[in-house]
Amino acid sequence: MSAIRNFKNCGSVLVTGASRGLGLQIVDSLASGGFSPGKIIATTRQPSSAQKLQELAEKHPNIHIITLDAVNQESIEKSVEEVDRLVAEEGLNCLINNAGIKVESDFHTVTAEKMIENFHTNAVAPLMITKAYLPLLKRAASRGGAGGAGKMGIQRAAVINISSGLGSVELAWGEEAKNIRWYPYRTSKSALNMVSRCMAVDLEPDGILCMAVHPGWVRTDMGGSQAPLSPEESITSMLSVIGRLTEKEHGSFLNLTGEVLPW
Amino acid sequence: MSAIRNFKNCGSVLVTGASRGLGLQIVDSLASGGFSPGKIIATTRQPSSAQKLQELAEKHPNIHIITLDAVNQESIEKSVEEVDRLVAEEGLNCLINNAGIKVESDFHTVTAEKMIENFHTNAVAPLMITKAYLPLLKRAASRGGAGGAGKMGIQRAAVINISSGLGSVELAWGEEAKNIRWYPYRTSKSALNMVSRCMAVDLEPDGILCMAVHPGWVRTDMGGSQAPLSPEESITSMLSVIGRLTEKEHGSFLNLTGEVLPW
Ligand SMILES: NC(=O)c1ccc[n+]([C@@H]2O[C@H](COP(=O)([O-])OP(=O)(O)OC[C@H]3O[C@@H](n4cnc5c(N)ncnc54)[C@H](OP(=O)(O)O)[C@@H]3O)[C@@H](O)[C@H]2O)c1
Ligand SMILES: NC(=O)c1ccc[n+]([C@@H]2O[C@H](COP(=O)([O-])OP(=O)(O)OC[C@H]3O[C@@H](n4cnc5c(N)ncnc54)[C@H](OP(=O)(O)O)[C@@H]3O)[C@@H](O)[C@H]2O)c1
Repeated sequence: MSAIRNFKNCGSVLVTGASRGLGLQIVDSLASGGFSPGKIIATTRQPSSAQKLQELAEKHPNIHIITLDAVNQESIEKSVEEVDRLVAEEGLNCLINNAGIKVESDFHTVTAEKMIENFHTNAVAPLMITKAYLPLLKRAASRGGAGGAGKMGIQRAAVINISSGLGSVELAWGEEAKNIRWYPYRTSKSALNMVSRCMAVDLEPDGILCMAVHPGWVRTDMGGSQAPLSPEESITSMLSVIGRLTEKEHGSFLNLTGEVLPW
Repeated sequence: MSAIRNFKNCGSVLVTGASRGLGLQIVDSLASGGFSPGKIIATTRQPSSAQKLQELAEKHPNIHIITLDAVNQESIEKSVEEVDRLVAEEGLNCLINNAGIKVESDFHTVTAEKMIENFHTNAVAPLMITKAYLPLLKRAASRGGAGGAGKMGIQRAAVINISSGLGSVELAWGEEAKNIRWYPYRTSKSALNMVSRCMAVDLEPDGILCMAVHPGWVRTDMGGSQAPLSPEESITSMLSVIGRLTEKEHGSFLNLTGEVLPW
């Protein structure tokens, strides 16, 4: 748990897709863990129907619910204005691009529309959201982080992209891969990995860390009931990895225990 | 040149984007080289304005010009009907997905629309085209290739995806990568690499080879005048690699001299 403790040095964390699944669990674990960041900004495209998130926010006053539809540019920009007022001169320390969809069509059922839909939500949206939040991230990064040390990490400024092992081109091979032939989802996550790597190069001069992480196969609406991990297990492990990120992991692709995955 | 000779054992090759650049050079090199496949099917979205291709076709009766707009499903399907009549019971031996665009926007100028446009042409189109041509590829594959040997390769049935080194996530790093920050193009080619790898898994049971190849940096409209390679140099080398592909290279990502590139 020691690395989760690092979130105490993190003024603000924003999570997309916090209505349910892993996003909700991130908010829950951060708020309840005893090492809570100053502000937890939980975004969802429809706050009124995010019942569980509302309940969490009632218990934890550092949770702020904000509307953000990841594929709607106007909604992204409106959310930035609200978050700007919330974090003020401290800026945003940690942006977690978690919102995602899984379009499962195989070679025979895939269409151009399905490919584009999944690509838009999973690869384009994290890019457009990061672009829109750049001024807030830069503001946080320019303060140098805890103790003004100027080192990279969540205590300063970081963009975490929730990717998937299914986005690894290398691993899309062999017996196991044969059973998971979802072209839209797989391509969207390889594309996200490229976006993540390119952003790492572009954000580095500002001292903003950027990387991609695979949360494991988890029992959520997306992961299904057969998955081996509970959301809590996945997120406890993943937050611990995120909490100890340094410039060494900048531009990388890690799994939930911090091991490097092939692209 | 010996591997280009293998194209003599190849009944038919289809190339997309054959109006200019590398696509036109593939048609030219295949037609003029003395090791010409039976039928060279040169597709372009606007035959009437493909002047140089028309001239080549006048000289070489085995060149057949067919209309194909890679982002238009109706156009793809119409082209299949025409090619079906052309290749008849022999099927299509080699499909080269070459058509592509390069949208150059960087982190600051990129938009969702630009990302989607490049993704559609470079990653989705090769998938939709391969799906549409599958019956013709299967027909060729089921004949077992030259001598009926049943080995994988262009003499039997193959899908070649013209990718790019810029699609390698691994290589999108370091000093050189800093200068080439075209998000739409890079992500489209990583996505194409995933599409290529997934298709390799799906086409294998039918004996259809599938792989991705990087043609090098070449002086075309896309590559620009600073590029070190002439189209002829690139295509001579690449056709030689394509000509000697076997099941060992199935699902791989190679450069124009046959070296393996990281994903
Ligand atoms: N579960 C796994 O096994 C697994 C494995 C690898 C990677 N992942 C990745 O982990 C992330 C979270 O997955 P999950 O399992 O928690 O999925 P989930 O249970 O289906 O939840 C998806 C979340 O994303 C949100 N979302 C989808 N589209 C959105 C949009 N346009 N704008 C805003 N929010 C949007 C959903 O909001 P609504 O409630 O409004 O629909 C929901 O909060 C995804 O990126 C996924 O690809 C999951
Ligand atoms: N040149 C390089 O240095 C380089 C390096 C790495 C990879 N590549 C790849 O090699 C391939 C060929 O590139 P190039 O250098 O020959 O580019 P180019 O000179 O710009 O030619 C592109 C070709 O693609 C066609 N095309 C574009 N969109 C199309 C569509 N929707 N439907 C049908 N055809 C379409 C164009 O047709 P129109 O004439 O109708 O526009 C043209 O024939 C591309 O996939 C490119 O990404 C090139």
